[in-house]
Amino acid sequence: MISWLPINNDSDFSIHNLPFGIFSIHGGLKKVGVAISDKVIDLAALADHGLLKEIGGLAKSVLINEYLNDFIALGNSKTNGLRDHLRLMLTLESSPLKELPGALIDMDQVIMHLPVRVGDYTDFYSSIEHATNVGKMFRDPENALLPNWRHIPVGYHGRASSIIETNIPIRRPKGQVLLADSPTPLLTPTDKLDFELEVAFIVGKNSQLGQSVPVNHAEDYIFGLVLFNDWSARDIQKWEYVPLGPFLGKSFASSISPWVVPLEAFDAFRVAGPIQNPPVLDYLKIAGKKNIDLNLKVYIQPQDSKQHLVSNSNFKYMYWNMAQQLAHHTINGCNIKIGDVMASGTISGKDKNSFGSMLELSWNGQEPITLANGTTRSYIEDLDTIIINGFANNEYGRVGFGELRTQVLPAN
Amino acid sequence: MISWLPINNDSDFSIHNLPFGIFSIHGGLKKVGVAISDKVIDLAALADHGLLKEIGGLAKSVLINEYLNDFIALGNSKTNGLRDHLRLMLTLESSPLKELPGALIDMDQVIMHLPVRVGDYTDFYSSIEHATNVGKMFRDPENALLPNWRHIPVGYHGRASSIIETNIPIRRPKGQVLLADSPTPLLTPTDKLDFELEVAFIVGKNSQLGQSVPVNHAEDYIFGLVLFNDWSARDIQKWEYVPLGPFLGKSFASSISPWVVPLEAFDAFRVAGPIQNPPVLDYLKIAGKKNIDLNLKVYIQPQDSKQHLVSNSNFKYMYWNMAQQLAHHTINGCNIKIGDVMASGTISGKDKNSFGSMLELSWNGQEPITLANGTTRSYIEDLDTIIINGFANNEYGRVGFGELRTQVLPAN
Repeated sequence: MISWLPINNDSDFSIHNLPFGIFSIHGGLKKVGVAISDKVIDLAALADHGLLKEIGGLAKSVLINEYLNDFIALGNSKTNGLRDHLRLMLTLESSPLKELPGALIDMDQVIMHLPVRVGDYTDFYSSIEHATNVGKMFRDPENALLPNWRHIPVGYHGRASSIIETNIPIRRPKGQVLLADSPTPLLTPTDKLDFELEVAFIVGKNSQLGQSVPVNHAEDYIFGLVLFNDWSARDIQKWEYVPLGPFLGKSFASSISPWVVPLEAFDAFRVAGPIQNPPVLDYLKIAGKKNIDLNLKVYIQPQDSKQHLVSNSNFKYMYWNMAQQLAHHTINGCNIKIGDVMASGTISGKDKNSFGSMLELSWNGQEPITLANGTTRSYIEDLDTIIINGFANNEYGRVGFGELRTQVLPAN
Repeated sequence: MISWLPINNDSDFSIHNLPFGIFSIHGGLKKVGVAISDKVIDLAALADHGLLKEIGGLAKSVLINEYLNDFIALGNSKTNGLRDHLRLMLTLESSPLKELPGALIDMDQVIMHLPVRVGDYTDFYSSIEHATNVGKMFRDPENALLPNWRHIPVGYHGRASSIIETNIPIRRPKGQVLLADSPTPLLTPTDKLDFELEVAFIVGKNSQLGQSVPVNHAEDYIFGLVLFNDWSARDIQKWEYVPLGPFLGKSFASSISPWVVPLEAFDAFRVAGPIQNPPVLDYLKIAGKKNIDLNLKVYIQPQDSKQHLVSNSNFKYMYWNMAQQLAHHTINGCNIKIGDVMASGTISGKDKNSFGSMLELSWNGQEPITLANGTTRSYIEDLDTIIINGFANNEYGRVGFGELRTQVLPAN
């Protein structure tokens, strides 16, 4: 499938991808856009010129909108039908899209916004390598995994209000910390600011309170995927988290990438996950390949310096997959809603260079890493920018997210 | 202050109260209402007849609305100004309200709905008696409180989507449970379904990401209070909660009362809270009386039987107050939004009859309680209805919430 639009082989936004996002130009209205190569397709402009008639049209109120939620509510068959239709228009030599003024906007001319109005945000803990690393550091190295870990896709509720888009800087948070040599806590800016490399899915369909979503129908409830940086303050988290879990050590910010890649765009990149042993309970038993071979990279870019690769991981490492996470989340009748965000938890591999957090990369500060500019890092410093990207790539082509970029500003 | 409308002395909805809620009649539109005695004031009807001109009018789109969020966004001075204006119209002998058709609707003619579109829901753990009881049962009776408890108003993020209004039944949830004599968990309906007696506040003003709300301005961000039943499945919670906190043991449902009582309505019922020792950090130091003397009662009503009082507690017992909860919640820069719900955690007193959960009342099933119909309860059984009410009462008058009523249906 060849487009008349030039698309580099290393573009995340190939003809196979066609992800959705919310963009604006020069302070204009927020609109639903589709990424292709280095362009954004303005769907409202296509609707204006009757180019969406073949798929039954799309309401302007859905396309000119602050969020994707109403668009997602159209359903997967409609939104994927639109992608098929766009793919046709991007490959037909006689395409009306070629000459349509305002239909294809240069990506560097747009501002990208938060793609969805987030209802609830859940964070899982589904990488066995990450959970094992944490257990080795803070609990028993010989018994790093807790007894429930291989039975339950462990997760917790996170803060939805502080989920922010790419290019929004965060402030180093303050909080209560108990220093090692002190009997009482103090209020201080965190000294252990960390990223967590994650992938999140956006819920695409509502379920009813009291109903459970069966594991082998769970993917029908997933609209698409984003990159997710679950910012963490390890010292604040350590003092607060027993017994009710992470709270202010996480709730100051989580960053998500602007383009939501539909789950279907990863069909060619599906792989089997790790063998689950002991076997999981029936309500978590899956059929088919539920993991995705998706490269993930994290870079630290110090102020006035080049970006330095610190982690090279892969979404395929996940022990618990998205279908299991969603089936577990609803087994008690908890309802899910369009726009809910469910994140994977830190994605670490077996090798040290694939660890998805500074906590693991520097082994809680015991083994600082050295950047190309000669400075070292145990945790993230002021004015550092964290850049996450992710893409799947095989003979079929490339499907990715672009960049998720966040700078850290000093504490207030 | 005497109204021309007959108001019983034991009505929660006195002339001092005037709480806000969302009501509908016979499948009609949802509207903003005010409770007085056994009537609901239809604010849209007053607006139609020009009776809100004195306070500068109120947009119909705000008054005919599925939720109170837009109304709350008008600000405390406007919404309390409206209450003052209504109070005048309810006491003036020549009031135009007296003869206005459709302005005062019998409470038994309306259906009450969820009062707010909940953004985020946070649950605290702020009763020292409750935290001590839990610590005695599950940790060390001699060291029941964890080291952080007297320093931090401990809390966690809860599930917002499953917050439901009064009179909506819940299904007994299923979940993974590890039985005492088993090496592996099983999937089963909970055997330890519990209520938690709580009071929640509704956030009335947005804060910005990266900013903290100072403790002595925190009450400016509180719109009003509701009764809150944080349904819990103790066996599911026990197996899942280490290390990331409660998840499916709570997320199947939380019930809130329909009438939001403005914080200002409790001005005459303020009292000092317990002495906090050790002293709290500066950002949690309060000036003035921040607790509220508010009676709270829980009843179990078995199917075809009378309601039986099982708990008689008081909101004044809280160790951590709402201002401290909010100051702590935002100390890391976490932003709050209008419609966020922040619940107290189970409210228990010192005496056994004031414990706010079956976990404590039956001491985790070791001391079942006997109801008036002769049956016993360790936890809640199918078809039981839990009724919570709450009211403040002194020489000034009475201010309360009415009833929060939820029946438990068998598991699916």
